[in-house]
Amino acid sequence: MVALGGNALLRSGQKGLFTEQVQNVTETCRALVALMKEGYTICIGHGNGPQVGNVMLQHEAGNKTFGLPAMPMDFCVAETQGSIGYLIEMCLYNELHKAGIDKSVITLLTQVKVDKNDPAFQRPTKPVGPYYSKEEADRYAQATGAVFKEDPKGNGWRKVVPSPVPMEIDHVEIVKEAVEKGHVVITVGGGGIPVVEENGNYKGIEAVIDKDLASALLAARIGADSLFILTDVPNVCIRFRQPDEKRLERITVAEAKKYLAEGEFAEGSMAPKVRAAIFFLENGGKECIITEANSLGSGNAGTRIVAE
Amino acid sequence: MVALGGNALLRSGQKGLFTEQVQNVTETCRALVALMKEGYTICIGHGNGPQVGNVMLQHEAGNKTFGLPAMPMDFCVAETQGSIGYLIEMCLYNELHKAGIDKSVITLLTQVKVDKNDPAFQRPTKPVGPYYSKEEADRYAQATGAVFKEDPKGNGWRKVVPSPVPMEIDHVEIVKEAVEKGHVVITVGGGGIPVVEENGNYKGIEAVIDKDLASALLAARIGADSLFILTDVPNVCIRFRQPDEKRLERITVAEAKKYLAEGEFAEGSMAPKVRAAIFFLENGGKECIITEANSLGSGNAGTRIVAE
Repeated sequence: MVALGGNALLRSGQKGLFTEQVQNVTETCRALVALMKEGYTICIGHGNGPQVGNVMLQHEAGNKTFGLPAMPMDFCVAETQGSIGYLIEMCLYNELHKAGIDKSVITLLTQVKVDKNDPAFQRPTKPVGPYYSKEEADRYAQATGAVFKEDPKGNGWRKVVPSPVPMEIDHVEIVKEAVEKGHVVITVGGGGIPVVEENGNYKGIEAVIDKDLASALLAARIGADSLFILTDVPNVCIRFRQPDEKRLERITVAEAKKYLAEGEFAEGSMAPKVRAAIFFLENGGKECIITEANSLGSGNAGTRIVAE
Repeated sequence: MVALGGNALLRSGQKGLFTEQVQNVTETCRALVALMKEGYTICIGHGNGPQVGNVMLQHEAGNKTFGLPAMPMDFCVAETQGSIGYLIEMCLYNELHKAGIDKSVITLLTQVKVDKNDPAFQRPTKPVGPYYSKEEADRYAQATGAVFKEDPKGNGWRKVVPSPVPMEIDHVEIVKEAVEKGHVVITVGGGGIPVVEENGNYKGIEAVIDKDLASALLAARIGADSLFILTDVPNVCIRFRQPDEKRLERITVAEAKKYLAEGEFAEGSMAPKVRAAIFFLENGGKECIITEANSLGSGNAGTRIVAE
C-alpha cells in the first residue's frame, strides 16, 4: 500500500496548471514503477488537501458569480477522487507502458464510514476552504451551523471541520481481489468520502479523514505487507531542523511511540504519519516506510518502522 | 446496461441544491431496484451534461475570483465521474439495503479512447461551459486555440468542442467480471474521460463523448443482453408533439433506421439515443429499451427496439 501526499500533484511554488500537475504526477508514477520493479504489487491511496481546498474555492466563486449552489465537503472530496484518480491512472499507465509492464490500473471511488459519535465532531479542528471576513463567517455560521475559526496568521476566518477516525472502508474485498490479480488499484482518495450510517442509510458528512490513517486501515484490511507513506522529506527526523537533527533509518513501534510522546513529531505533519504507521504495524503490517517518492526503488530508502 | 441521463440528478426548474440532487438520484435508484427485482444484473453508465457545465463555470469563476487555473475538459469530466458516481453509489446502496438486496455497488473511473483523426475534431459542434461576450470569446480563442460559436438563442458565445465516436473503453474485462460476480458497476460516466493515444501514451483531450453511444459500446463489449436508455419521456414517438403523434412500443432496427432517415427524431435529443440503440443491436445486443426511469419494473415499459 502506498499513500501519496496531495503534493504529489500540486506543489507549493507552482501555479497548479494542468501541465504542471501532469508533470508532477508523472514523476511520482516513475517512482512507483521503480517500486514495482522491486517486486511489489501496489495499491495506491492519495491525499487531496490542496485540491479539495481549490474545489471549495471554485464552488464558492461559482456561487457568488453564477449563483450555483456550493456543494458539501463529501461531494467535493468525491470530485477530487475523480480528478486525482484520473491523473494518477493515466500517468501511471503511461509509465508502466514505457517500462514494458503490462498491468491494469483502476480507480475505485471509496466511501469511508466514520462514527457520528466520534468526539472529533464535537471539536472541529481541520481548517478547509476559503478565508472569510468575520462578518461573512458569522453569517455563514448562522445560516449553515458550520463552525469558523480565526486563522492564527491573520488571513481571516475559515471553516473548520471534524477529522474523525476512519472506521470502515468500502469495497475492501473487491480491492483485495483486484490487487491479488495483479491490478494496480487507486482507492481511498483524500482519505475517503466521509459517510455516517443513520437508520441503516449511508449519508455524507462534512469532515476530512486523514489519508494516512485511512490508507493504514485499508493496508491492514487487505493484508498488505508494507505501507509506504510518501511525503516531501527523505526521512523521519528527531530534533527536526535543530542543530543536532537526526535522520531515523529504522525504528520500532515502541521507539516511535516514545518519540511521539516526547513531541518529536509535529502535529498536522509527521505525527499523524507516525501514528498511521503504528496503527498498521499493530494490525498485522510488517513494515512502514516513510520517505519521499524520489527515494523509492533504491531498496532501503527512508525511515523504516517495524513492529519490534 | 442502463444509461442514465444527466437529468437523473440535476433537473431543470430546480436550483441544483445537494438535497435536490440526492432526492432525484434516490428516485432513479428506486427505479433501478425495481429493474433488478425483475432479475436483471445491472451495469450503469450516466451522462453529465448539466454537471460538467457547472464544473466549467466553477473553474471559470475560480479563475476570475481567486486566480485558480481552469482545468481542461477531460479533468472536468473526471470530476463529474467522482461526484455523480458517489451520489449514485450511495443512493443505490441505500435503496438496495431498504429492499433487502445484498449487493456491492462500485464506481470505476473510465477513460474512453477516441481517434485523434476523428472528423469531429475538424468541426467541433457541442457547446459547453459558460457564455462569453464576443470580445472575451475572441480573446480566449486567440489565447487557447479553442473554437467559439454564437448561441442561436442570443445568450452570447460559447466554446464548442468535438464529440468524437468512442473507440475503446478502458477496463472492459474488469467490468465484465465484476458484473458477472453480481456487483453493480457504475462506469463510463459522462460518456467517459476522452483520451487519445499519442506515441504509445494516453493523453486527455478536449471533447465530449456521447454517453448513450459510449454505454452502447460498453454494453456490446461486456455482452449485455439489454440496454436501457433512460430519458425524460416514457416512449420514443414519431411525429413528436404533432397532433398525430404516435408512441412507439416495439420497432425493429430497420424501422428505426427508416424513421431516422425521415428526420422523425431530433438531433441532440432522441436521434443519438436511437443511433446508440442501433449500434448495440448490430453488435450482439438483444433489445434496447428507451423510456423514463419511473416506467422501469413494469415489465414492458417504453419503446423496445429489437434486431428484427
